Amino acid sequence: MITESLISRIEGYRARVENALDRFLPSADQPSTRLEEAMRYAVLGGGKRVRPLLVYLTGESLAVKPEILDGPACAVEMIHAYSLVHDDLPAMDNDDLRRGKPTLHRAFNEATATLAGDALQAMAFRILTESGPVDPASRLAVIRCLADAAGTAGMAGGQLVDIEATGQVLSLEELERMHRLKTGRLIQACVKMAALCLPGLPADQFSALEQYALEIGLAFQIQDDILDVVGNSEAMGKKTGADCALEKATYPGLAGLDKARKRARDLADNACDALKPMGERARPLHELAEYIVSRER
Amino acid sequence: MITESLISRIEGYRARVENALDRFLPSADQPSTRLEEAMRYAVLGGGKRVRPLLVYLTGESLAVKPEILDGPACAVEMIHAYSLVHDDLPAMDNDDLRRGKPTLHRAFNEATATLAGDALQAMAFRILTESGPVDPASRLAVIRCLADAAGTAGMAGGQLVDIEATGQVLSLEELERMHRLKTGRLIQACVKMAALCLPGLPADQFSALEQYALEIGLAFQIQDDILDVVGNSEAMGKKTGADCALEKATYPGLAGLDKARKRARDLADNACDALKPMGERARPLHELAEYIVSRER
Repeated sequence: MITESLISRIEGYRARVENALDRFLPSADQPSTRLEEAMRYAVLGGGKRVRPLLVYLTGESLAVKPEILDGPACAVEMIHAYSLVHDDLPAMDNDDLRRGKPTLHRAFNEATATLAGDALQAMAFRILTESGPVDPASRLAVIRCLADAAGTAGMAGGQLVDIEATGQVLSLEELERMHRLKTGRLIQACVKMAALCLPGLPADQFSALEQYALEIGLAFQIQDDILDVVGNSEAMGKKTGADCALEKATYPGLAGLDKARKRARDLADNACDALKPMGERARPLHELAEYIVSRER
Repeated sequence: MITESLISRIEGYRARVENALDRFLPSADQPSTRLEEAMRYAVLGGGKRVRPLLVYLTGESLAVKPEILDGPACAVEMIHAYSLVHDDLPAMDNDDLRRGKPTLHRAFNEATATLAGDALQAMAFRILTESGPVDPASRLAVIRCLADAAGTAGMAGGQLVDIEATGQVLSLEELERMHRLKTGRLIQACVKMAALCLPGLPADQFSALEQYALEIGLAFQIQDDILDVVGNSEAMGKKTGADCALEKATYPGLAGLDKARKRARDLADNACDALKPMGERARPLHELAEYIVSRER
């Protein structure tokens, strides 16, 4: 069950990452270019910040200071934000609404949206060169982790599988593989980046966190799909049933809502089981797993 | 004048970077995804490799081993290749032909082109985490340099200025400012990255190289614009006069061919003047400046 304490810490970390994002992004005060405005539009004012939360809560469980985690938390959120901007483009999912606002290419134009996404990716890696673990070698490992998760063997690779699968009949296995690439690898990177901020973490604990993150990443995506079916447009801030209209394969679409709920729950349980080598320090991550599959938006 | 020796070294470095790019890109032998195929299509088989040449020749002048430069050379070429892919998209310049072949979105489709560009950017930074100067702090500095040059204060920022300026009347100053952002910063990064591979380079020599690269970057772009007017489609591998058809401002378009040639030559001379603190070791860079403004493709 989700404690009052978790909810209040989540609120605290959300405020923290909003603040840090605002600080890392080009300033809104100075005369700024349309590109910088577009980047702020894409990143600020909305979003559940699940990825930064994973960074901070993993860090909390390992007693890593939040100041060290601001860079990784903001970098992964910028990668996520850029992927949404590109995903929404007419040649991709062609979405008009995102987080209750017009998508970036609707509010600006396609060229600006393409370039703002590109610039956000560059900024994510830029941030990690100056923020994160103190030791330069660990900082390089954090950059490598994020780059791997964003590339062909992760998010970008998964997005192409997703687009190519639109209108196709997928098996549950194929769907899970696609989700693990498209969403799972970046979610996993959040946990791994936080773990890389603690030099000397024993290998079995690193592996435990990796496995936890793998399971939680898929659980998160299935819960998202469930909310797309049962949620309403107001709470979600985007068109619900949109995946259905695009003939996107989803877990509830393929297996039904009940099985989808059970699968998300099982994955959360698997995730928590994986944390055994961590002992009591993993409590924030147990709470987060529960939060991810019971959230209503 | 361009020596035989320079031409043969340029050929050698070109072969070297082709080989290194092939090695860093996802393998063509294993069953590869469409995304990986698209990335290889975008990067391999064509291109003058001017940016990698700048990396290697700067390194040569500083006696940095080529093995250390392969990572920076390939990373900057991947950033350049991804920017061409996105620049060619229908919402941007809408080009059908690039390096004598159909552009990526023509050969594949727009979604694949968008994602292949995204994945190439991630791969560029990935490469730099494992290749480049041995010292991790220098490697971080190389990543920072490339990320800055690719982002809002560099390439992406300049591309938006370029698109917004299409059909507008620009002054020569505005045009130069746009070119310095869009092309110049990345060209400059090539020289700076190579310089960062030599720990302990005196600050005045670093500044000299920075200034050289700034001038040479603009000279390169003006020469490109000149070739766009006087070249023919076969030698250039892209539609010539394309900038004119798009109502893009160019130096020869605004000032005429003669003034453009003089400006390119002056910039090359300025670049070489800036190299004074480097002494005799800067000879490869003098040769390269000459090469850039006298090349015919």
